[in-house]
Amino acid sequence: MADYIPKPEHKFTFGLWTVGSRGVDPFGSAVRPYKTPAELVSLLGEVGAYGVNFHDNDLIPIDATPAEAEAIKMNFRKALADTGLVVPMATTNLFSDPIFKDGAFTSNDSKVRAYALQKTMKAIDLGVEFGAKVYVFWGGREGTETDSSKSAVESIKRSREAMNFLCEYALDKKYDLKFALEAKPNEPRGDIYNPTTGHMLAFIATLDHPEMVGVNPEVAHEHMAGINFMHGVAQAWEAGKLFHIDLNDQYPGRYDQDLRFGSRDIKAAFYLVKFLEDVGYTGSRHFDAHAYRTEDFEGVKTFARGCMRTYLILKEKVDRFNADKEIQALLAEINANDGTMDHYFGKYSPDKARALTAQPFDRVAISSKGLQYERLDQLTIDLLLGTR
Amino acid sequence: MADYIPKPEHKFTFGLWTVGSRGVDPFGSAVRPYKTPAELVSLLGEVGAYGVNFHDNDLIPIDATPAEAEAIKMNFRKALADTGLVVPMATTNLFSDPIFKDGAFTSNDSKVRAYALQKTMKAIDLGVEFGAKVYVFWGGREGTETDSSKSAVESIKRSREAMNFLCEYALDKKYDLKFALEAKPNEPRGDIYNPTTGHMLAFIATLDHPEMVGVNPEVAHEHMAGINFMHGVAQAWEAGKLFHIDLNDQYPGRYDQDLRFGSRDIKAAFYLVKFLEDVGYTGSRHFDAHAYRTEDFEGVKTFARGCMRTYLILKEKVDRFNADKEIQALLAEINANDGTMDHYFGKYSPDKARALTAQPFDRVAISSKGLQYERLDQLTIDLLLGTR
Amino acid sequence: MADYIPKPEHKFTFGLWTVGSRGVDPFGSAVRPYKTPAELVSLLGEVGAYGVNFHDNDLIPIDATPAEAEAIKMNFRKALADTGLVVPMATTNLFSDPIFKDGAFTSNDSKVRAYALQKTMKAIDLGVEFGAKVYVFWGGREGTETDSSKSAVESIKRSREAMNFLCEYALDKKYDLKFALEAKPNEPRGDIYNPTTGHMLAFIATLDHPEMVGVNPEVAHEHMAGINFMHGVAQAWEAGKLFHIDLNDQYPGRYDQDLRFGSRDIKAAFYLVKFLEDVGYTGSRHFDAHAYRTEDFEGVKTFARGCMRTYLILKEKVDRFNADKEIQALLAEINANDGTMDHYFGKYSPDKARALTAQPFDRVAISSKGLQYERLDQLTIDLLLGTR
Amino acid sequence: MADYIPKPEHKFTFGLWTVGSRGVDPFGSAVRPYKTPAELVSLLGEVGAYGVNFHDNDLIPIDATPAEAEAIKMNFRKALADTGLVVPMATTNLFSDPIFKDGAFTSNDSKVRAYALQKTMKAIDLGVEFGAKVYVFWGGREGTETDSSKSAVESIKRSREAMNFLCEYALDKKYDLKFALEAKPNEPRGDIYNPTTGHMLAFIATLDHPEMVGVNPEVAHEHMAGINFMHGVAQAWEAGKLFHIDLNDQYPGRYDQDLRFGSRDIKAAFYLVKFLEDVGYTGSRHFDAHAYRTEDFEGVKTFARGCMRTYLILKEKVDRFNADKEIQALLAEINANDGTMDHYFGKYSPDKARALTAQPFDRVAISSKGLQYERLDQLTIDLLLGTR
Repeated sequence: MADYIPKPEHKFTFGLWTVGSRGVDPFGSAVRPYKTPAELVSLLGEVGAYGVNFHDNDLIPIDATPAEAEAIKMNFRKALADTGLVVPMATTNLFSDPIFKDGAFTSNDSKVRAYALQKTMKAIDLGVEFGAKVYVFWGGREGTETDSSKSAVESIKRSREAMNFLCEYALDKKYDLKFALEAKPNEPRGDIYNPTTGHMLAFIATLDHPEMVGVNPEVAHEHMAGINFMHGVAQAWEAGKLFHIDLNDQYPGRYDQDLRFGSRDIKAAFYLVKFLEDVGYTGSRHFDAHAYRTEDFEGVKTFARGCMRTYLILKEKVDRFNADKEIQALLAEINANDGTMDHYFGKYSPDKARALTAQPFDRVAISSKGLQYERLDQLTIDLLLGTR
Repeated sequence: MADYIPKPEHKFTFGLWTVGSRGVDPFGSAVRPYKTPAELVSLLGEVGAYGVNFHDNDLIPIDATPAEAEAIKMNFRKALADTGLVVPMATTNLFSDPIFKDGAFTSNDSKVRAYALQKTMKAIDLGVEFGAKVYVFWGGREGTETDSSKSAVESIKRSREAMNFLCEYALDKKYDLKFALEAKPNEPRGDIYNPTTGHMLAFIATLDHPEMVGVNPEVAHEHMAGINFMHGVAQAWEAGKLFHIDLNDQYPGRYDQDLRFGSRDIKAAFYLVKFLEDVGYTGSRHFDAHAYRTEDFEGVKTFARGCMRTYLILKEKVDRFNADKEIQALLAEINANDGTMDHYFGKYSPDKARALTAQPFDRVAISSKGLQYERLDQLTIDLLLGTR
Repeated sequence: MADYIPKPEHKFTFGLWTVGSRGVDPFGSAVRPYKTPAELVSLLGEVGAYGVNFHDNDLIPIDATPAEAEAIKMNFRKALADTGLVVPMATTNLFSDPIFKDGAFTSNDSKVRAYALQKTMKAIDLGVEFGAKVYVFWGGREGTETDSSKSAVESIKRSREAMNFLCEYALDKKYDLKFALEAKPNEPRGDIYNPTTGHMLAFIATLDHPEMVGVNPEVAHEHMAGINFMHGVAQAWEAGKLFHIDLNDQYPGRYDQDLRFGSRDIKAAFYLVKFLEDVGYTGSRHFDAHAYRTEDFEGVKTFARGCMRTYLILKEKVDRFNADKEIQALLAEINANDGTMDHYFGKYSPDKARALTAQPFDRVAISSKGLQYERLDQLTIDLLLGTR
Repeated sequence: MADYIPKPEHKFTFGLWTVGSRGVDPFGSAVRPYKTPAELVSLLGEVGAYGVNFHDNDLIPIDATPAEAEAIKMNFRKALADTGLVVPMATTNLFSDPIFKDGAFTSNDSKVRAYALQKTMKAIDLGVEFGAKVYVFWGGREGTETDSSKSAVESIKRSREAMNFLCEYALDKKYDLKFALEAKPNEPRGDIYNPTTGHMLAFIATLDHPEMVGVNPEVAHEHMAGINFMHGVAQAWEAGKLFHIDLNDQYPGRYDQDLRFGSRDIKAAFYLVKFLEDVGYTGSRHFDAHAYRTEDFEGVKTFARGCMRTYLILKEKVDRFNADKEIQALLAEINANDGTMDHYFGKYSPDKARALTAQPFDRVAISSKGLQYERLDQLTIDLLLGTR
């Protein structure tokens, strides 16, 4: 068996807010002490991560003085140098402060919208200062509890205007930066706009600079809506829009759990890793999760190591799936094509249409073939359980 | 009070399969007798519908002889003439026959894919023959139970190729026809591709003829995933893609219920009607629902009348909302803009960015304002309950 | 139309934590300032509530000195006297403090279990001191994220032992007190034990003093699991176990929303009010909800008034439903019984069984009757919308 | 590695309806041909099942003549003899026929209620004739789409009267038979009464003969409501009520999927098998599932073999978990008890209460301990994935 040791080539990253989570939840207060960004970088270095990501206010508190900010940055930079960690991604906190209680870019208050733009420009500068190449947008407060309060169309327009403005800002500054939009269906708002990766992809297609904007799908967020995460990731990938990914775990139909990657839905995690490895995704494998509230910082490290270890175990299973003779023979059989239909596919022509219209089909014969998907799935389960 | 009588201008349509539903479900057999398409048109005429839509095999059984097909069409045409009903939309049944057990356009079997194209071309011809201007695609079997069985990327490519081919077919035939894609997250497949209207919009943006392809969002399908239906409709509308709409009702997180419009989630139905009426949507209000299985055909008529009546009641409430002085004053207050931020919005310029970066914001002052959304929502509830 | 003014006879109560909620959520900090218990009582008096309920630490902070506790109680008592509010219910906070991170009565740590018992005894004393007649138990931390961590059977036994101990404590102290257990499926734990009111009722049947223990069903908690709240309340009522009720609102399949009563699922709220009023429930109508995070304290008052107003509007609709001649005639027809089967029902006898076995039934004739439930439901919708 | 061959001692059973499923669903017709009960028994014998269960109408069609019934029974009996299969359980189909469209025992029509009793008595006789020792009740139609149509309290009373009658019938006939009630939250009805195993347990406690009535929890049904299946099974077991169990798989928040056991939620399946094996459950392991609609009868056999194989793989993992030194040492540490609190637990006494009230607790010290549940869960994941 492999040793499942994380290496830089695996591009495993964590947010400061993940290992720094103090375990506050709607019904309980902090269970773990505060750690500085530099301390968190050390922790991530210790467990073998490749990179660290941050929200502006993870690094620099919203009310920090310039001097305080400089001191924090110096310590953070030193910790990066000491550990060798990089900062591949950064993002803006547009949800914690009360000013964002009705949204940031979609707030009904023009002062809030202006402040959100300002805060994001400054946060982009900060991210770029530390080398971030991907900038994530998660609009946690962009939504409603009552649809009497806001125009959904106006909110789309406001979101688009903000994104267009910020794209231009990054271009103007000549930043080597791509934007990645992250969807979530609800929580903390009753309903959040652009609730899935699909909605985000559609939204991106309407921007002024769609080429520099992609998505950052998150396992937990799509599972909350009970939809197939890998399918959404595949759509993003196929459209050239998979700029970043948030790995964690989640049981559907409940609050945002941000569980250790692969700890809840093993099968879905496998298909996701298989997809990423098979297509050759080269971006960060970012773990946007946190340790159970029962844990101290030893538990946090175990949690972080577990995210990476399970990814690597599943990655090895992908290799095994692809090398398994029985599985591959079955897949070949399932996908066999006798070529007799090939001339009907591809670009349309009137002749093709005419010929196809006249083609006889033996529906009963075609239908009666068993497709062997139970066998294929059982082979997959055996592979996952380590019994093949 | 108004009389809530459906009129042609309301564009209320039903599918043959809705009032013709015999009440079969996974655990029970038919509770209502078969009615011919012509009989169903008469029933729809009797209740006051404007139009009727069909799948190819609702009208012409899949194994009908040409002579049988002609006889059915003659009777159907006569019933349309007798009742004055029109056929604004048609669609293909690509899910009932066993041949589609692993999908139609995304089947792993090239014969099935070719047959699906053929069947759709013929069904388009049939729809156009009866005057349909919108052609709906619901790919109920395009998905998987096990993701070992199919490549998600390949499925997207196959779907795209099929849509491109069929667009060309309609253009080649000079049909005055738009396509409307309908999303659903699951059922009858474990997971269906393009599970939400958002995913469909994103998919459309990748087609060869995006201008002729829009969406047909369905209340029940989006509620199954627990997402805000009106928000998705707004996104489609704002993108110029709301070509058709399927109205019904559904409680989230369960099997596809297709309940009478407005019978389950009154508030969501109100915001939907408000959206459609406020933006001036002029397409069909298609009811894709069926009567409870407890009903006979009298119950079916009551059901169909109820769909339209509730729409009209909610439409009147929209007028009332828009005319309500207290509500409108509150909305004006909520949306008040003192203009001081206006120069920061709109197209980006380096000067704007510089000025905005330097703009001071009093976060505490801005945050401390109560937004009065509880009051606005309670006024809405009162309006819905008829107590204002 | 009625004025929908709350009166003491309506038994409308609120928890200190409801109107005192500061709007903290997993992604955001407080948006409203702290108010003392006495201030919150004044606010509740102003909006017309009948009573106020509390957790021990809503009233007395967990680390208060005896002197501080006395001062708080004095002020609270004065506010009650000033407003005329009563304290019908009290409960223990067994979830906020980090000590309860793995549960209270079901913690694996015997010290935590002992402390939970101690804290509850003291909190019971405090509740009784202020006149509470119902004592609620919500075990928000009694559950798991990983089922490797705890024995589910052991947890049931620990819960039972704790409840038996505390029943005896109340009896020993001669308190005039009933216990009401509140279920919730998840949040803040991954899974909470006894996830629904049904599970709680089953658990109660295994206690030493089942007669003094009932349930406190909460709208939001059962809706989270997508189940019919009124049905669960009916089961509790029919078993003589509806000791208290928590009213609020919630969209299924997401985080605990605690929305204003009747603001989200109007139809479900109607059937609930209809049930409570029809059976003559005389307990508190406790609103366990909070204002949107967008609100200031004016909004909080609007929220509280709205909970009560909507209840009263729905109560009036219940009267209207029960007096509606068309509805009642339809119900009479639906429930008509020709008496021919009556002798088969009631207590079993071999003769009955024999006779029933030989009884012929015309399945087709019985099945063919339309049950008119679409009509009945549409009449209900009309009544809810104020159009009858 | 073990060979995972099913043996009689494993008590693996299937319903006739599971391997006999023809793949009909709400959107598609049969994909597999009809097989006689005798043929299905042969198939089950071939794959190594221990037993076969049936609904009355799986074996004898509802309109069969006495002569037809006798012929079917003779063939079925012969197939049982040939294969050695037993019939541990039987049940009644109270949902397929249109007569049950508004319920069986809870129908508003007294003729339907009487017929349901008659049908069940006859079906019990049939089950006993073939040796069934457990009789399952699944009331798929006992519920509502609109709560205007039925009294929830009346429905409980009707259900109870029916169960009491049928208990007496079985006692009167001196049948060696226990009843097992099966819960489901919805589908085919909008809401089904007694939606979870918890509600069923509570209902049983109110019957005249609770000792002869237990539950038959089903994985898919509880997962539909998003609740922890093993917790519900544990509650049933601890109450002495786990008379039978239905194994399959299901993704939450959607239609009833009845997937191959262990094919979707591997972790939940593991904890379930662990529970059943650890407590020494000796009843049937009944697979209430069916093959994907893509399969022919070879696929059906693969499906049936897969259910049993995965159970046995997980059973072996249970042994491994229980023998794993690191896991067991960790569990011992987690559950360590220094005994200092022991005198506070157990039966209440005033002295205990007094002493406990005075006991000091160092909340901070107790809280600060990390519980190592991330480590324990990662060890479990490794064990499941075969990497330890």
